[in-house]
Amino acid sequence: MNEPRHPDALRTHDAFAAPAVRDLAGLLDALRASAAKRHREGGHAAQEKQWIADAQLLTLAVPREFGGLGARWPEIYETIRTIARVDSALAHLLGFTCLQVVSVNVWGNAEQRARYLHGTVEHRWWWGNAVNPLDTRLIATASGDGGYLLDGQKGFCSGTRGSQMMTISAHDPATGKPVFAVVPTAREGITVHEDWNPIGQRQTDSGSVSFARVRVEPDEVLERADTPYASLRTLISQQVLINLFVGIAQGALEEARAYVTQHGRPWINAGVDKATDDPYLIQRFGQMRVQAVSAEALAARAAHALDGAWRQGSSLSADALAHVALATSEAKIVAHRAALDVSEKLFDACGARATHAPLALDRFWRNARVHTLHDPLDYRVRDVGRYALSGTLPEVSLYT
Amino acid sequence: MNEPRHPDALRTHDAFAAPAVRDLAGLLDALRASAAKRHREGGHAAQEKQWIADAQLLTLAVPREFGGLGARWPEIYETIRTIARVDSALAHLLGFTCLQVVSVNVWGNAEQRARYLHGTVEHRWWWGNAVNPLDTRLIATASGDGGYLLDGQKGFCSGTRGSQMMTISAHDPATGKPVFAVVPTAREGITVHEDWNPIGQRQTDSGSVSFARVRVEPDEVLERADTPYASLRTLISQQVLINLFVGIAQGALEEARAYVTQHGRPWINAGVDKATDDPYLIQRFGQMRVQAVSAEALAARAAHALDGAWRQGSSLSADALAHVALATSEAKIVAHRAALDVSEKLFDACGARATHAPLALDRFWRNARVHTLHDPLDYRVRDVGRYALSGTLPEVSLYT
Amino acid sequence: MNEPRHPDALRTHDAFAAPAVRDLAGLLDALRASAAKRHREGGHAAQEKQWIADAQLLTLAVPREFGGLGARWPEIYETIRTIARVDSALAHLLGFTCLQVVSVNVWGNAEQRARYLHGTVEHRWWWGNAVNPLDTRLIATASGDGGYLLDGQKGFCSGTRGSQMMTISAHDPATGKPVFAVVPTAREGITVHEDWNPIGQRQTDSGSVSFARVRVEPDEVLERADTPYASLRTLISQQVLINLFVGIAQGALEEARAYVTQHGRPWINAGVDKATDDPYLIQRFGQMRVQAVSAEALAARAAHALDGAWRQGSSLSADALAHVALATSEAKIVAHRAALDVSEKLFDACGARATHAPLALDRFWRNARVHTLHDPLDYRVRDVGRYALSGTLPEVSLYT
Amino acid sequence: MNEPRHPDALRTHDAFAAPAVRDLAGLLDALRASAAKRHREGGHAAQEKQWIADAQLLTLAVPREFGGLGARWPEIYETIRTIARVDSALAHLLGFTCLQVVSVNVWGNAEQRARYLHGTVEHRWWWGNAVNPLDTRLIATASGDGGYLLDGQKGFCSGTRGSQMMTISAHDPATGKPVFAVVPTAREGITVHEDWNPIGQRQTDSGSVSFARVRVEPDEVLERADTPYASLRTLISQQVLINLFVGIAQGALEEARAYVTQHGRPWINAGVDKATDDPYLIQRFGQMRVQAVSAEALAARAAHALDGAWRQGSSLSADALAHVALATSEAKIVAHRAALDVSEKLFDACGARATHAPLALDRFWRNARVHTLHDPLDYRVRDVGRYALSGTLPEVSLYT
Repeated sequence: MNEPRHPDALRTHDAFAAPAVRDLAGLLDALRASAAKRHREGGHAAQEKQWIADAQLLTLAVPREFGGLGARWPEIYETIRTIARVDSALAHLLGFTCLQVVSVNVWGNAEQRARYLHGTVEHRWWWGNAVNPLDTRLIATASGDGGYLLDGQKGFCSGTRGSQMMTISAHDPATGKPVFAVVPTAREGITVHEDWNPIGQRQTDSGSVSFARVRVEPDEVLERADTPYASLRTLISQQVLINLFVGIAQGALEEARAYVTQHGRPWINAGVDKATDDPYLIQRFGQMRVQAVSAEALAARAAHALDGAWRQGSSLSADALAHVALATSEAKIVAHRAALDVSEKLFDACGARATHAPLALDRFWRNARVHTLHDPLDYRVRDVGRYALSGTLPEVSLYT
Repeated sequence: MNEPRHPDALRTHDAFAAPAVRDLAGLLDALRASAAKRHREGGHAAQEKQWIADAQLLTLAVPREFGGLGARWPEIYETIRTIARVDSALAHLLGFTCLQVVSVNVWGNAEQRARYLHGTVEHRWWWGNAVNPLDTRLIATASGDGGYLLDGQKGFCSGTRGSQMMTISAHDPATGKPVFAVVPTAREGITVHEDWNPIGQRQTDSGSVSFARVRVEPDEVLERADTPYASLRTLISQQVLINLFVGIAQGALEEARAYVTQHGRPWINAGVDKATDDPYLIQRFGQMRVQAVSAEALAARAAHALDGAWRQGSSLSADALAHVALATSEAKIVAHRAALDVSEKLFDACGARATHAPLALDRFWRNARVHTLHDPLDYRVRDVGRYALSGTLPEVSLYT
Repeated sequence: MNEPRHPDALRTHDAFAAPAVRDLAGLLDALRASAAKRHREGGHAAQEKQWIADAQLLTLAVPREFGGLGARWPEIYETIRTIARVDSALAHLLGFTCLQVVSVNVWGNAEQRARYLHGTVEHRWWWGNAVNPLDTRLIATASGDGGYLLDGQKGFCSGTRGSQMMTISAHDPATGKPVFAVVPTAREGITVHEDWNPIGQRQTDSGSVSFARVRVEPDEVLERADTPYASLRTLISQQVLINLFVGIAQGALEEARAYVTQHGRPWINAGVDKATDDPYLIQRFGQMRVQAVSAEALAARAAHALDGAWRQGSSLSADALAHVALATSEAKIVAHRAALDVSEKLFDACGARATHAPLALDRFWRNARVHTLHDPLDYRVRDVGRYALSGTLPEVSLYT
Repeated sequence: MNEPRHPDALRTHDAFAAPAVRDLAGLLDALRASAAKRHREGGHAAQEKQWIADAQLLTLAVPREFGGLGARWPEIYETIRTIARVDSALAHLLGFTCLQVVSVNVWGNAEQRARYLHGTVEHRWWWGNAVNPLDTRLIATASGDGGYLLDGQKGFCSGTRGSQMMTISAHDPATGKPVFAVVPTAREGITVHEDWNPIGQRQTDSGSVSFARVRVEPDEVLERADTPYASLRTLISQQVLINLFVGIAQGALEEARAYVTQHGRPWINAGVDKATDDPYLIQRFGQMRVQAVSAEALAARAAHALDGAWRQGSSLSADALAHVALATSEAKIVAHRAALDVSEKLFDACGARATHAPLALDRFWRNARVHTLHDPLDYRVRDVGRYALSGTLPEVSLYT
C-alpha cells in the first residue's frame, strides 16, 4: 500500500521493517506507475524486475548465514502481499524466487546450499520454476556419471523467462522416479518460449520451456527428501498464492478508495452532496474491507503456523505439518473469495466510467481469476471439511 | 442458445417463433463463430449487423400496421437474450434499435410514426441513441421555424456508429427545457467518434458524438409526452439491460458446459474418472443454473407486466406504471447478480487452462461488468425496499 | 397475506378467486389471531382445522365431477402459500389432504375414486398420510380375500391426528412389494400417538401411528401405478413444500413490515427521524422482498409446468415428467433459501425487542428450518447440476 | 470444546492455561450436561453459577494485586468463548461480571478499587449490570452528602438476578448528567424482576430492576472518566459479545460433528456407505469450519489490539482507541454472521431428526439471534466503511 496516500487503511499488523530493503515505498511507487500499462501489454518486465533485485528482495528467504535477509515467513509474506497490492504478477515472481530458494534449502546438500544461496545473494538471481509435477513430459536419462540428459518440455514455468537459474523436475523412465535438479537458464539446449498469454497475471513469465539434450551435472541433482520438513515447500508455495490473493483484495480496495475520492460523483437520486457520504457506497467499502481484513488475518495466522513449523526443521512431525496444511487451506479459501469479490465490487464502488479500458481497473479481477484457478477451491474446502467432520488431517503432496 | 448443441438446457418457456425471422439458429451460429475475436478487437461489427438486419430483427418492435414484426414484449426480450447468450454487445445494439423505435412510437405524431416506422421496415435502419438525459452538453437553439440548430456533444451514444438514424435530446437554454428529435446520422455537422474503449460490451458502438450547427427540421422534433404510457420507454430500456444480463448468464453457463464436456479433466484428487462425474463440479453447475433460471423467470415476469401495461396505451395509470417499474427493478437485481456470478464461476468450472487469452472466456464477465454499471444496483434495491417497507412505489424518470 | 393491512405488497400474480371458498380473508384473520400462541403450545388445532373445512378448502383438489372445487394447480398452491403466510403448519395439513386426494385419484379405480372423492366433499374429510416409503416397519399380511392385516408402525404421519381417512403403505414380506391402501383413521387397531414434538411446524399432526391387526378390506387396496402421470404425485408433494417455504418467506416479510411500522425506532446513530427512513433498513427490506419474489416466481413457474403435465393425464411422457421434476427442484432450492433467510433477517429488521418469546416471531424460522429438512437441498442441487452439465434428467421416485 | 471428544478440531491458538482455574474441562462437561434442558426451561441457573464461581473464574479480570487471576484479555476472551461453546448464556454472565470489574477498575478511586476488587475475590461476587445508557428511566436525586436516592427502573439488566453486586447508571435531573455507582443487589428498595423471557440467551438473568428510594452512599458513587482508557470499557463489552458469537459458532459445529458421527445416515441417493463420506456433507462442514475459524481469528486479533491498548493505561490516545474500535467492529461483523450461519446450517448437516424439540439443537441459533441484535450490524459495517472510504475513525460512546 502506498503509505503517503492513506497510511494505515489496511494495516493490521506491525509494519514490516526489514532493514536491508532499500526504499520499499519508492519501489512500490515505481511499480504502480506502470502497472496498468504493463498489464494491458503483457510480456516481460525486465526493468521492474531489476528494481526488485536492486532492492535486495530476492534474498528475502536466503538464510543470513549465506548473506541473505533471512526474513521470517510472516515478514516474507507481508512483503509479497505489499507488492501484490500494486502488481500481483511481479509479486508472484518474487514469491516464486523465494520458493526456489527454499527448494535448494530443503533438497540441497551442504555444498549445493552454499553454492546456490550464496550465488543468489551475490548475483541477484531470479529463479524460474519447472517443478510442475502434474506435467510429466520432460524426460531425464541418466548419463552414467550421476548426471542426466533432459529432453522434452514443461508448461507453466513461472518466472523462467528472464531468470538466471531454474529448478526442474523430470521423469526418469528407467527408474520410474522423478529427478530434481538446478540448472542455469542459459544452459545450452534450453529454450524459454514467449507463449504465456492469459487473461491475467500476464507478466509472470510463465510460458513453456523446451529442453533438447540438456546436460545436468551430477552436482546439480537435488535429493528431494520426503520428510515433513521438506514438504513444507508445498505449503510455502500455497502461501505465496494466498498472499497474492490478499494483496489483490487490498490493492483493489485501495484503488477503489482512491478513485472514488478523486472522481466519485453521487448518484442523482442519492440525496447526498458527495459520493463519500452515500450510505450504500460506505456500506460497500465496509464489506470490501471486512473481506480484505479477514483474508489478511487468516493469511497471517497461516504464516505464523508455517514459521513455527519451519523452525522445527527436521524434527517436524507429520501431524504438525498437516496442521499447517489445514491452516493454509483455511486461509486460501477466505483469500480466494476476498480477491474475487473485492476486485469485482471495485466497479460497483467506482461506477461506469471506471470501465474505460486504458485504466485497466479490471486487472485486479483478472489477476485474481487466473491465479485462483491454480488448484480447485472445492478440494480445499473438502480438506477442511474432512477434518471438521472426521478429524482426518490433509495429506501434503508435492503439488497441494 | 445453439439448439443443436444442447436443445433445452436453458429453456424455461415456450420457444420464440416469430415466423418472419429468417433462420435465427443460423444467425446465432454465425455470430458465435467470431464472438471471441470481435470481443478482443472491439471496434465495429458491420458485417454482423448486416446479418441481423437481414434476419428482419430490426423491425421486432415496429407495429404490424407499419409492416414490422409487431412482436409482443416477451418475444422481443426473448430474442434479445437469445442473441445475448452469444454476443451481448450486438444484442444491446438490437435492443436499443427497438428502444428508438419505441421512442418514435410514443413521442411521435402520426406523420412521424408513419415516416420513421415504415422507414425502419423499408430501409432496415439501425438506430443510435443520443437521449442520455444525464449528459447536458448538447445545446439546441430554436431556428424560428419550429426547428433547431444543435451544437455540442453527447457521450455514451449506444448504437450510433454505423447507424442510419438517431434520436437525440438537447438542452434549450431559452426555455430551460429539453428538446427531443430524430435526425439522420449522416446529417451534415454530425461526427460520430470512434472513442468507445471499455473493458466489455466493446462492440456496442457507444462512443461520443459531436454536433456542429446541425439542423433539425420542424417535422423532426418529437413531442415527448409525460404520460405513464410514454414513461414505459424507460422501463423498456431497463428491460433491455435485464435481458442482456440474463443472456450473459445463460451464455456463460452454456460455454462452461461445452468447455467442460470437451476439455474437462478430473482433478487429481477427485476420485472420479470423468470431470462430469465430479460431485463438486456438478454442484457448481447446479448453482449456476439456478441463478440463470431465477433471472430468466423474473425477466419473463417483468416482460409480461410490461406487455400488459403497454397494451393499455394511453389509459395506463401512474400506479400501474409504478408496478411495472417495481417488477423491473426486482428482475434487474436478480439478473445483475446472475450475470456477474455465473460469468465469474465459469472459470471455476472450466479450470486454469480456460484463462488462455485467445479463448476470451472472460468476455462474459467483462460484458456483464460494464453493463451492470449503467445505474447503481443499490438504488434498485432501495426502490424495492421502500415499497416492501412503506408501500411507496418507485418513480419512473427518463433515465431510471 | 392480510389484505386490509397492505393490499398488494407481495402480490405478483392475479389474485386467487376460487368462488366457492367462503371468506378466505376472514379465515386468515382468524388463523393469524392465534398463530403465535398455537406455535408455542404445539398440539392439535381442532378448531382451526374445522374452520378450514368449513371454508370448503378440503376439496380444492377434488375434480368437479365429484363435487369438488377442481382448482388448477397454480390456484391450489397459491391458496396453500396464502395460508402459509399466516400459519405454515395448517397450510401443510391442507396441502397434504390435497395430496391424499391425488393419491386416490391416480392410484384408485373408478369405484374407489367415486367413494373417496365424493366422501371428501360430502363429509369434509381431513386425510392423514402414512405413505412414507423410507419407513418400512409396517407389515401387510394378505388375508386371502384380497385384503390385508396390518401390523407395525409408521413415523412422521403428517395430518393423521384428527383425520378421518388415511392412506398407508406397508411392506408385504410374502411378495417383497409394498401395499397401498385407504383406511378410516378410526378403524380398530389403529392408534395415533401424540408424540410429534419438533422445534417448528408444531401443529402438523405428524406423530407416529401404530397398527395392531388392522383389517384392510379388498376394495380399500390401491393399485399404485408406476406411470409418469402417477409419478406426478411425488412432485405435487414437493410443490406443497415449496409453497410452504414461499409462504413462510412472505409471511415473515409481512410480519417484519408490520412490526417496524408499528414499533420501529431509529438507531441512535442513524441520523433519521423514523425507522422507515433508515437507508439500511430499507435495503434489508429490499433484499428480503427480492428473495420472496424470486421464490414465488419459481414456484409459479413450477406449478404451471405441473399443471400442463397433469392435464396430459396418462399420455404424459417420462421426459415431460422429468422436466417438471427439474423445475420443481429449481423452485425448491430458491424457496428453501428464501424461507430461511427472510425468517432470520426478520429480526435484523425488527431489532432486539422482537425476540420477546411471547411474540413467537421465531416461528417463521423454526417452521422453515423443520420443513426444509424433508430431503437434503444438496441433492436437489445435484439433480439440477447433472442436467446443466450433462443433460441428464432427474428420476422421480415415490419419495423425491 | 470438550477436549476428550475431539481434541483440537477448533483449536487455533495455544491453549488457555490459567493455573488457578480448577478443572475447566470438568466444568464444561457439567454445564453441557444440562444445557439443552436449561435452555428450554429458562430461568435462573443458580447451581451452575456456583460452579463457575467455585472455579475462580469470577476473578479473571481482577488484577493480581487484588488477588485476582489478572488474566490478559486474549485469555479472558478465550475462556469466555470456551464456555460459550457449551452455554453462551452463562458465558455472557461471566463476561459481564468481568465487565463490571472493569467498570470499577477504570471509574473507581483507589479505595473503591480495593474494596470491590478484593471483595470480588474474597466473596466470589457475581455482578449485575444496570448501566444501560439508552434507558433513562432511573432517576438519581442528590441527598446532599454526596450520595443519592434512586427511583425508577432499568431494563435488560444482564446478570442482576442472582448477583451480589451491581453497577448502575441513573439520570440526575438537577444536573442533567448521569450518575454511576455500585450498590449491593440486596439493598433495600431494589427489586429484581423475573421478567426476562426471550427466544434465546434465556439464562442471562437480564430482566428489569425497580428502584424505590434506594440509598447510594457517597463512597459508592463512581467518577466516570471520559478518557480513551476508560472508554475501553465499551470495547471490552463489545468483545464479550464477539466471543459469545464465536463460541456459539464453534459449539454448533462441535454439536453437528458429534451428532453426525453418532446418528448420521447417508441420504438414500448419496451413493456412499457412511454419512461422513458424503461429499456434500463434507463440504458443509468445511464451510462451517472456515466461518468459525475466520471469526475466531478476527476475535483474537481484536483481543490482542485491546490488550495492547489496555496496557497503555491512561496514556492511551484517542486515535489508538479508535483503531481498537475498528478492529472490534470488524471482528463483530464476521462473528455475527458465523454464529447465525453455522447454527442454522447445523441442521442441514444433521438432518430432519435433529429438529426433535427435546434435543434443543436450535438453542445455538436462538442464542445467536438474540445476542446479535444488541446493536445493528449495519452500523458496524458503516463504521468500517467510513474508515475504508474516507479514513474516518469510529467514535467510541458508552454504548457502542
